[in-house]
Amino acid sequence: MPKVSDDRLAARRREILDGARHCFAEYGYDGATVKRIEESTGLSRGAIFHHFRDKEALFLALAQEDAERMADVAAEQGLVQVMRDMLARPQDFDWLGTRLEIARKLRTDSSFRSTWLAFSGDVEAATLRRLERGRQAGRLRDDVDTDVLVKYLDLVLDGLITRLATGQPTDDLHAVLDLVEESVRTKR
Amino acid sequence: MPKVSDDRLAARRREILDGARHCFAEYGYDGATVKRIEESTGLSRGAIFHHFRDKEALFLALAQEDAERMADVAAEQGLVQVMRDMLARPQDFDWLGTRLEIARKLRTDSSFRSTWLAFSGDVEAATLRRLERGRQAGRLRDDVDTDVLVKYLDLVLDGLITRLATGQPTDDLHAVLDLVEESVRTKR
Repeated sequence: MPKVSDDRLAARRREILDGARHCFAEYGYDGATVKRIEESTGLSRGAIFHHFRDKEALFLALAQEDAERMADVAAEQGLVQVMRDMLARPQDFDWLGTRLEIARKLRTDSSFRSTWLAFSGDVEAATLRRLERGRQAGRLRDDVDTDVLVKYLDLVLDGLITRLATGQPTDDLHAVLDLVEESVRTKR
Repeated sequence: MPKVSDDRLAARRREILDGARHCFAEYGYDGATVKRIEESTGLSRGAIFHHFRDKEALFLALAQEDAERMADVAAEQGLVQVMRDMLARPQDFDWLGTRLEIARKLRTDSSFRSTWLAFSGDVEAATLRRLERGRQAGRLRDDVDTDVLVKYLDLVLDGLITRLATGQPTDDLHAVLDLVEESVRTKR
């Protein structure tokens, strides 16, 4: 049997993640059975679980991808931009509903929670670094701890995810994000 | 058989709601089976479903109670106070996790969604009335539409519910709520 190249492995991993993301978006965490993940990836369970230990590992890998993407945008353009991107392409965030369905698991499964919180921590850290640069540049208000501003933005992000995940209209949230952005800036 | 008095019926209804709230908090929406609701209320399914058509009706009655309580506080003291109450007694909001678990149902079941949104609408309306009084009294900023301010507060509330429901620490959110409150007020 020929040795499978690293490129090939990475491409396979990519196929699995994309298929699984659609599957979670469509059926939810519990509804995304192994059989359905096979269908949506077009791969056998053997192939899938060669790359990911189990469904939980697959789910966490997707959450990590999200977190990395968010952290990149947050580091460059701020967490408000992460939220504006969500408003611009709500269909890309279909799968976020799954994040809400795992609330109970987050509350009761401490190893799952600590992995999950580590990803959120990456986004927070990227946001914090950007805010600190903003503060040095005089763009950021300096009468409130940066830490409080990060937690504030994070709370609004959680609210936005909930809004998107429950299928509520979000068209009217642009003006709200303007207000959020303004509330962390230096008053002029 | 003696005729059951209205008081008796109201007390029974109360028992069912309290028991069901605990049951949803402990087991989640899907996990709260009829058998478990019987156990947590101490009543038979016949007695329970005499008062509520089905589990969905019971769940929506609890959501309506929450909404009425929130609307009362929002009307008198504002939506930020609703959030401060949540921070002060997180254990009373255990069952909020269930609200996240129903995200999929909200997205896919339109009759369920419209009932649910009507309750949120009551809270929004109460918040709006209070903000308008605040604006007349000059306490509220007047450079942003009241409607935008309501949606902003609502978004933060959704974020807070998610935070509580996923069992994340909330001790550090008091300063965040100060910032939220300040951001809707007239600048001094």
